[in-house]
Amino acid sequence: MRHVLSLFDLTTSEIQELFQLTGQLKQQYEQGLRQPLLQGRTMALLFEKPSLRTRVSFESGMAHLGGSTLFLGQDVGWGQREAIQDFARVLGCYVDVVVCRAKRHADVELLARHATCSVINGLTDYSHPCQALADLYTLQELQGPLPGKRLAYVGDAYNVTRSLAIACGKLGLRMSVASPPKYQLDAPFLERLRREVPQVQLELTDDPRQAVRGADAVYTDVWTSMGQEAEREQRLRDLAAYQVDSRLMQLAAPHACFLHCLPAHRGEEVTDDVLDGPQSEVIRQAANRMHVQKGLLAWLLK
Amino acid sequence: MRHVLSLFDLTTSEIQELFQLTGQLKQQYEQGLRQPLLQGRTMALLFEKPSLRTRVSFESGMAHLGGSTLFLGQDVGWGQREAIQDFARVLGCYVDVVVCRAKRHADVELLARHATCSVINGLTDYSHPCQALADLYTLQELQGPLPGKRLAYVGDAYNVTRSLAIACGKLGLRMSVASPPKYQLDAPFLERLRREVPQVQLELTDDPRQAVRGADAVYTDVWTSMGQEAEREQRLRDLAAYQVDSRLMQLAAPHACFLHCLPAHRGEEVTDDVLDGPQSEVIRQAANRMHVQKGLLAWLLK
Amino acid sequence: MRHVLSLFDLTTSEIQELFQLTGQLKQQYEQGLRQPLLQGRTMALLFEKPSLRTRVSFESGMAHLGGSTLFLGQDVGWGQREAIQDFARVLGCYVDVVVCRAKRHADVELLARHATCSVINGLTDYSHPCQALADLYTLQELQGPLPGKRLAYVGDAYNVTRSLAIACGKLGLRMSVASPPKYQLDAPFLERLRREVPQVQLELTDDPRQAVRGADAVYTDVWTSMGQEAEREQRLRDLAAYQVDSRLMQLAAPHACFLHCLPAHRGEEVTDDVLDGPQSEVIRQAANRMHVQKGLLAWLLK
Repeated sequence: MRHVLSLFDLTTSEIQELFQLTGQLKQQYEQGLRQPLLQGRTMALLFEKPSLRTRVSFESGMAHLGGSTLFLGQDVGWGQREAIQDFARVLGCYVDVVVCRAKRHADVELLARHATCSVINGLTDYSHPCQALADLYTLQELQGPLPGKRLAYVGDAYNVTRSLAIACGKLGLRMSVASPPKYQLDAPFLERLRREVPQVQLELTDDPRQAVRGADAVYTDVWTSMGQEAEREQRLRDLAAYQVDSRLMQLAAPHACFLHCLPAHRGEEVTDDVLDGPQSEVIRQAANRMHVQKGLLAWLLK
Repeated sequence: MRHVLSLFDLTTSEIQELFQLTGQLKQQYEQGLRQPLLQGRTMALLFEKPSLRTRVSFESGMAHLGGSTLFLGQDVGWGQREAIQDFARVLGCYVDVVVCRAKRHADVELLARHATCSVINGLTDYSHPCQALADLYTLQELQGPLPGKRLAYVGDAYNVTRSLAIACGKLGLRMSVASPPKYQLDAPFLERLRREVPQVQLELTDDPRQAVRGADAVYTDVWTSMGQEAEREQRLRDLAAYQVDSRLMQLAAPHACFLHCLPAHRGEEVTDDVLDGPQSEVIRQAANRMHVQKGLLAWLLK
Repeated sequence: MRHVLSLFDLTTSEIQELFQLTGQLKQQYEQGLRQPLLQGRTMALLFEKPSLRTRVSFESGMAHLGGSTLFLGQDVGWGQREAIQDFARVLGCYVDVVVCRAKRHADVELLARHATCSVINGLTDYSHPCQALADLYTLQELQGPLPGKRLAYVGDAYNVTRSLAIACGKLGLRMSVASPPKYQLDAPFLERLRREVPQVQLELTDDPRQAVRGADAVYTDVWTSMGQEAEREQRLRDLAAYQVDSRLMQLAAPHACFLHCLPAHRGEEVTDDVLDGPQSEVIRQAANRMHVQKGLLAWLLK
């Protein structure tokens, strides 16, 4: 039984194996084949935060594989520390896998420690492993073998950024992160990253132009994540110079794609012309969330 | 890929084909056969308004066909204009069909314009196509071929009334609508109806007795729909003379059935003795919601 | 068509048959076999009170059997008397079985009276039949044939206690209930129990030590059930002497197990060392909720 709480939990060859499985499942799906590999299997979605994209991509993917989903939202009163421990022990008697979306990463870790079934992190304040897997799968699909590519991340370095940094390190990509100092990747994470993924090639800067110049992919995310609404005005000011617009995109490699985990705040971290423009691969990226998660479910449960 | 936002979207022969498919599926269902025609297929129910009947009939019907349903209720924060457009493009990557129940018909149209999968209108302020399909299927089941029959609608001419008017026009029934002038079918709809369904035979009156006399079916709906609660007292006064009671029913043809899309406000638009009486076919009608929607799903997705 | 509103609704041999079926399904499940016995069948969970355990055990169990679940929570506006009656008649057209969790037992009885499909009580203020079935199935699994065993219930004699009393009576166990007089089993229930299950061997006492001495199983439940929060302080005082701790457990038979329907209020009705101790079988008991409910669904729907 394996958990995927962050990409520290998967080896390079496991991620490669997962991408291969994802490719097979995506191809079958596009041919209209929906093999019930997980018939009779059940997945619980334990979501402390609202979600449309993550929820639909997981539920629909599980259904394509013949499995069933139980959606357990905020109304179930989950999130008190004791409840997590006591319920975790029972949950594994009922379901095969739990996808947990929680405010605090520590809660997902607590769940995994006591659960008797696999736990997948569906998004926490610390990391978003499924998103980063979908992102690099998308880049491989678009541009071929990943080693040597360079991903530029511009803006607020947060959960998605951390997951991308691990994934890039494990899969041989270089990554440049351009953020104002107080929004840059945090020291404890960087220390752990360099310890657990010593081959990581990571450049930290406060200059978006430096990060983007020649990059194969330009990535950004919202400046104000769920739960940070009170800091919104401050963040808009602090990050104003980090908007991805067409002028910034022109510094990237000509074949570069624009990526965003969505939903976007149009006119803040990205302009309409970039988000809707020819280099934007955000819809493919969103679609690949489902495909890579199907791969992950099939890989964990078979 | 086809959308069903109103019955203007289906031709006469398509509705007839749908009724035939519905009949086959209903017969199989009653024999205990539940063929997984849509195995591995997924449907999203995107519901801005609460619903029990529409939701259960769609979810259960999809399950009989081997498919899966994702219920996305009000809690998903859907309904902001930009969200609809952006999410619509992603949704089609994940699911095969979306059933949308929205306050504003324009929102469902916007969803359909951007969605990359089929969209079915599950009820808006403008129309309720699945209901009208179930209603006329029910009448055909009870009384045989529809051309030449006459349906009397009494009360508030609203979304269901519009859908019935289109369906009657396309399937060759005459329809009489008895409403106080300010609750009668609106001019823009009537204009579109006469343009797109020129063969329509529609009589508008403010006299319920005139509408019901000799009719093959008498239909009514609540006087205060969801969202109109503030006007309730005014509506009770304005529509008081339009209650369907046993005296009014006696004016209809002896074989006439009473129809109501439910839930009913007993003692307002209909009396208990009619709703629970021998001519009432409201339970059959509710059951046929599921059967006709199964037909619609099978027809759209195969 | 059968309803299971309380264990008065099942005969001794039906419960035995159900336990046998449960054993077969559990064995298959543990071998990884998930036979789609109920493929295409649908179950509605109509839940007026929040629930995690009951909901997940039913939904997951139904999925293992190939069936589908519709979860209808508090948001559907259920619970008004007329709605129950009117909706009950329609619900049976759409689903094969309804599991209802309601505040008032009378509401579930009303639902069953008008429903055209089987209704299972998923927990009311009066009874909790699925829990008691799981409990005695667990005891049989642990200690073999049930006749002659003795179950001690300590604390607030409420819905679970009533269901255990019926089950013990029907399956030949003796039961001792230790509660303060005002929390003891009520006279109307006891009268009905003695009338319908004349062979019942029930001892009522206000002394937990007397009840537990030599017992084969010691059972407790929370002192403040959902809906009783206002009485919490009073209940803590009244029931303080009824805590199950390790000293009390030592009075039971050496092979005795500790049972609790969960969730527990640690430090109130049970101490940590008992709940987490070697005699505690609460996780097995929770797991068996699912297995016995699968048995019940298979038994009702085949």
